[in-house]
Amino acid sequence: MLSAVERARLTVVLVGARNPQNIGAAARAMQDFGFSDLRVVNEFGAPFEAAQLDDNTPKSAVGAAGVMQAARRFDSLAEAIADCTLLAGTTAIGGREMQRQILPLQQVSPTIVDALRNDGSEQTTPPRVALLFGSEKTGLTNEQLSHCSVLTTIPMFAPLLPTGEPARHLSMNLGQSVAVCLYELVREGFEGSREIPVLHQAVATAEDRERLTRMLIETMEGTGYARRFPANAREHVVRQLAQSLGSTRDEASTWMGFFRQILRRES
Amino acid sequence: MLSAVERARLTVVLVGARNPQNIGAAARAMQDFGFSDLRVVNEFGAPFEAAQLDDNTPKSAVGAAGVMQAARRFDSLAEAIADCTLLAGTTAIGGREMQRQILPLQQVSPTIVDALRNDGSEQTTPPRVALLFGSEKTGLTNEQLSHCSVLTTIPMFAPLLPTGEPARHLSMNLGQSVAVCLYELVREGFEGSREIPVLHQAVATAEDRERLTRMLIETMEGTGYARRFPANAREHVVRQLAQSLGSTRDEASTWMGFFRQILRRES
Repeated sequence: MLSAVERARLTVVLVGARNPQNIGAAARAMQDFGFSDLRVVNEFGAPFEAAQLDDNTPKSAVGAAGVMQAARRFDSLAEAIADCTLLAGTTAIGGREMQRQILPLQQVSPTIVDALRNDGSEQTTPPRVALLFGSEKTGLTNEQLSHCSVLTTIPMFAPLLPTGEPARHLSMNLGQSVAVCLYELVREGFEGSREIPVLHQAVATAEDRERLTRMLIETMEGTGYARRFPANAREHVVRQLAQSLGSTRDEASTWMGFFRQILRRES
Repeated sequence: MLSAVERARLTVVLVGARNPQNIGAAARAMQDFGFSDLRVVNEFGAPFEAAQLDDNTPKSAVGAAGVMQAARRFDSLAEAIADCTLLAGTTAIGGREMQRQILPLQQVSPTIVDALRNDGSEQTTPPRVALLFGSEKTGLTNEQLSHCSVLTTIPMFAPLLPTGEPARHLSMNLGQSVAVCLYELVREGFEGSREIPVLHQAVATAEDRERLTRMLIETMEGTGYARRFPANAREHVVRQLAQSLGSTRDEASTWMGFFRQILRRES
């Protein structure tokens, strides 16, 4: 599980995003997964200001006002990433000829998580990992990708064109890409962690189930079902049926009460 | 890696989505991850028609026209899921008191993947897994969740309120939720393959289960149980109880026969 301090070391950089709604959506995804440092690279401020200044514009940022207000705009990518120690660029694998290795997200994720966790020794720069996303139209350009130490892609299925060939252009919605990447970074830690609410309901014991099995057999006999369908009323068959009844003690006791009521009517 | 045939067995069900852009965004996420069967449950058709008919309205669906055009609208959840064999409901963990176990997405994913891979033997119902998402405003209601066999949640971090306490209400953008869930289903395959367990028994469909629910309610009423324990006989409570009854079609039909026998005695 990434701690709050470790999560604070991740920076999401949106390079050339044009749609304020998408900037807002990225902020919301960050908020949901516990990240907070958003930087937007736009030579002209318009989309960023629209996203940041007008509370109502990016409905997409609902609940993420904190992330959105603390976001910063930079004129150039170089300035935006100046303090970052690991740069991971996201890219869809499209028509462009790629000359560098691009790893699927799930293979790059451990590298990023390790970098966030590595607080080095006293004298070193504190780690800061930048995760870069390109514009909606073009993605990260080769120039922008050249700033990155690792390149990653979200695995996707290419839709088939009418000709039967896979389409060359694949791309995901910007907010969805950010959500998927951040989810991948936190998913590991949540496996069996305390942040997942624990169910406080008592589970039925084998003894509860056995009692249920007896009761069900009795009910099958009492109602004449066992006489009509003897194969279904054999003990091991009924026990198997009753297995499914007792997932919680509450449920088991509801079934007991129900069978008791049926038997009452019979006597 | 899920094959195309296996991916075709997954149905995404949007229950009560109000914003056509979100329906489009869900379609696009499906397209990106190779899924195609989208069903929308809306009593009134407006949001769905807006998303489907006007090519320009949901910019969010760009590149996913195929999924969007093939999408179907249903008046009720029961109709939408009638042919589904496994129902997985997504829910944010909010203020609502949950009485059922909710597993994090990454723990539920293998169950869903196994169900998509299980093509059973010749005579059985083909598997169909429904992944349910609630409306933007409320998520899935308790009534809607009662149709589900498993409940899952995307792990998130609760933002802190000004008081320093974590907020109780957590929710993700609909399109982002769909993208994250589908990514989780396909991510595994891109790493290496899994063992495929084969189940040889016919699985009960949601329609079978709904029939079982009706029958159980009728039996509770007929025997006077409902009068004595009205809280246990409320429809969504009974539906939840009945979830456990229909794991296979054979078992479902044994229960049906048993309830029928009880009712015979009452009449």
